[in-house]
Amino acid sequence: MTTVVERLQRELDGRVDVSSVARENVRADKSGHASAGLPLAVVYPESVADVQAIMRIATETRTPVVPRGAGTGLAGGANTGAGEISLSLTRMTRLVEINADDLTAVVEPGIINAQLNDALRPHGLWWAPDPASREISTVGGNIATGAGGLLCAKYGVVRDAVLGVDVVLADGTLLHCGHRTVKGVAGLDLTALLIGSEGRLGVIVGATLKLRRLVGGTTCTLTALFATVRDAAAGAAAVTAAGLQPAIMELMDATSLEAVHRLLELEAPAAGQSQLTIQTDGATSRAEAGAIAAVLTAAGAVVAMTDDAAEGAELLRIRRSMHPAMETLGTTLIEDVSVPRSRLADMFDEIARIEHAYDITIPTVAHAADGNLHPNFVFDGPEVPPFIWEAADDLFTSALRLGGTLTGEHGVGVLKSRWLKAELGDAQWHLQQRIVSAFDPLGILNPGKVFAP
Amino acid sequence: MTTVVERLQRELDGRVDVSSVARENVRADKSGHASAGLPLAVVYPESVADVQAIMRIATETRTPVVPRGAGTGLAGGANTGAGEISLSLTRMTRLVEINADDLTAVVEPGIINAQLNDALRPHGLWWAPDPASREISTVGGNIATGAGGLLCAKYGVVRDAVLGVDVVLADGTLLHCGHRTVKGVAGLDLTALLIGSEGRLGVIVGATLKLRRLVGGTTCTLTALFATVRDAAAGAAAVTAAGLQPAIMELMDATSLEAVHRLLELEAPAAGQSQLTIQTDGATSRAEAGAIAAVLTAAGAVVAMTDDAAEGAELLRIRRSMHPAMETLGTTLIEDVSVPRSRLADMFDEIARIEHAYDITIPTVAHAADGNLHPNFVFDGPEVPPFIWEAADDLFTSALRLGGTLTGEHGVGVLKSRWLKAELGDAQWHLQQRIVSAFDPLGILNPGKVFAP
Repeated sequence: MTTVVERLQRELDGRVDVSSVARENVRADKSGHASAGLPLAVVYPESVADVQAIMRIATETRTPVVPRGAGTGLAGGANTGAGEISLSLTRMTRLVEINADDLTAVVEPGIINAQLNDALRPHGLWWAPDPASREISTVGGNIATGAGGLLCAKYGVVRDAVLGVDVVLADGTLLHCGHRTVKGVAGLDLTALLIGSEGRLGVIVGATLKLRRLVGGTTCTLTALFATVRDAAAGAAAVTAAGLQPAIMELMDATSLEAVHRLLELEAPAAGQSQLTIQTDGATSRAEAGAIAAVLTAAGAVVAMTDDAAEGAELLRIRRSMHPAMETLGTTLIEDVSVPRSRLADMFDEIARIEHAYDITIPTVAHAADGNLHPNFVFDGPEVPPFIWEAADDLFTSALRLGGTLTGEHGVGVLKSRWLKAELGDAQWHLQQRIVSAFDPLGILNPGKVFAP
Repeated sequence: MTTVVERLQRELDGRVDVSSVARENVRADKSGHASAGLPLAVVYPESVADVQAIMRIATETRTPVVPRGAGTGLAGGANTGAGEISLSLTRMTRLVEINADDLTAVVEPGIINAQLNDALRPHGLWWAPDPASREISTVGGNIATGAGGLLCAKYGVVRDAVLGVDVVLADGTLLHCGHRTVKGVAGLDLTALLIGSEGRLGVIVGATLKLRRLVGGTTCTLTALFATVRDAAAGAAAVTAAGLQPAIMELMDATSLEAVHRLLELEAPAAGQSQLTIQTDGATSRAEAGAIAAVLTAAGAVVAMTDDAAEGAELLRIRRSMHPAMETLGTTLIEDVSVPRSRLADMFDEIARIEHAYDITIPTVAHAADGNLHPNFVFDGPEVPPFIWEAADDLFTSALRLGGTLTGEHGVGVLKSRWLKAELGDAQWHLQQRIVSAFDPLGILNPGKVFAP
């Protein structure tokens, strides 16, 4: 009898890797959490037809398939385990078309976000979604997870930046969903449904992206130091309440700020000090930066401001060094709750309460303009200890109580699936799985992810 | 045996209308096309619990239900026929909450779009979707159809302006979909799926809307007269290609312009002349208006420009008088194709070809900034004659060939359902119906709409 791996090797010669190294690599994503067991193989389709062939073999042999971009996810959504095939889109990297007049681009899913934007820049264009991983993550992965970023409050989320997707279903059928026009309401909006579906509905094999023209004006950068994290959160809320719209507004709490300063060998901030890092852009950027500085000064901050690009990059470097700084503290479980932005200070109160209750520190950064927080649970050793999960449970429950969500931009994957029902409610949780079955009746696409068994 | 109407009357005392007038009224929407036969009753729920009660009765008795807002649709999506219940949301009109800090509002579905915006204005806020019907259409209807408008190219479509919806399923279950946060990716995006679902998936009983702050600056208005419609379309494309972003850019072809001038008793334009009507807004509106005027003058237009609000309204009145002017010509079938905006001039060539082939005139206006055209098929008598349907078929096929869609903002309803499969393809058309069945296994919600039997 021919095994599934033999069939793959026969039909996709040179595109199947069964080495231990390759199979070991796809057990985990950037969350560090790994699947149990070693997958059957890693396949590297080079065309839509290849993806269709893989899915037909998978359907005939009832073999689970886990689609994978660059593996930069933080929720374990692309982790692949025993008995499963890892379907890597990293060889489908073509930028098929740029249409400057229509502000659209057509891409294959494996193109790297930053490489796409490098190619768009000479045309005066960009694609707005900017996850922190943009230098290494794929556009297809950005779409499949509904990835966020720093610029979402001003420039929108992935849902706002994709007009159409091509998708291969579990049985190998290819669908062209969506449209190339600004408007289009013919039938159900499957494009929007596929965004953030984390590989449960189909394999995204192409996309028509909605582009923006590069923003003119001078980018201004501000930092604002506050005595406490609650003051910083209140300062961020005061900025948005004043009707000001920064492109970027990042908050670092005291522990984060201190860890980064230590890593970069900068002078330590005063105990408890928290920081907002803000950028404004566009034609009115200087006026907005001035107005923001006034609001923050009135809110008690010590404000620094520059319109020099190099100085701005230096100020932003502190925020960008967050993850390396966390790695110096121990192993981290990076969470991703989001709350209405007016509740940001309340959420920091909850984090302080949880730190005290569980006797842990939870260094936290937040995309303050959109209410999205990344609390970092720090612990020793490779496995998340039970008391950290308890603290995380408390965090999710608190976010939901404040009108928030358990994931703003990382997705559910395996790491948050046990809490999804609490957010959706029983009826919606079951309905969503009936929708999954409408796409994938055999349940072979990324099984067990998002919806915990 | 108790009839379904008796059960409704018993459980919803004072909220059930069985008069012939009421039942006759809900047979049609603003398209003029009417269902066959008279519905059983019109019910007016006043609460979510009422909607749930109606749907439970409908499920138990297997009675089809057609949700309805203000009945301003143009595709027959809310038309209700023999054996069906019309579920009118027009008594659920509460504005539940305005949150200026979070830029959100929570509404019941029956609130009128313009009334919502009247209530938001004192808070310095607005909800961007602006269908031409906004003075009389409901927000719930705007969401259910994915309604468009004039401002979409700059300020987005409904999908960009709704964070969450509450929906009652066919069996009476209430779901809270989406979130109140800027970002949120927990589970499948059912909110996006429900937008534009035309009553096939559930009854929208509430929504959390994403608001914008009122736009400052002086609104500038321009008109540009061109010798031909093709020149006007090319002029519009030149504006967007130059990286300029008007808030409104409307195109009227010669027949439309002439009919409106006759209606308003203005001096007739020269034969063949077509017009662009443009507005710019925001902090840089004057500079943008000046740049647009230069582009259009270079493209051969005679340009008039004003920054006076009253003069601007007067210029825009010509565009706003389109529908009354059409009514003076005969009965109209208003179509709604959308093409990539770079193909706008090509689409006008196709319309000219179809006019010639079928010996008809097709007065056409277009939202030129987003490539959405409304060709008006004019004929005598109440019924669409077969040769008009043939011409419409030619129009849809042409739009699809140019990379477009058969409906940019009106929806499929009954009037476009026979062409949907051509746009979606067989496999997607069937998949979409499996998704409908996941929501509504008995098929009692708005049956026969969108997906032609």
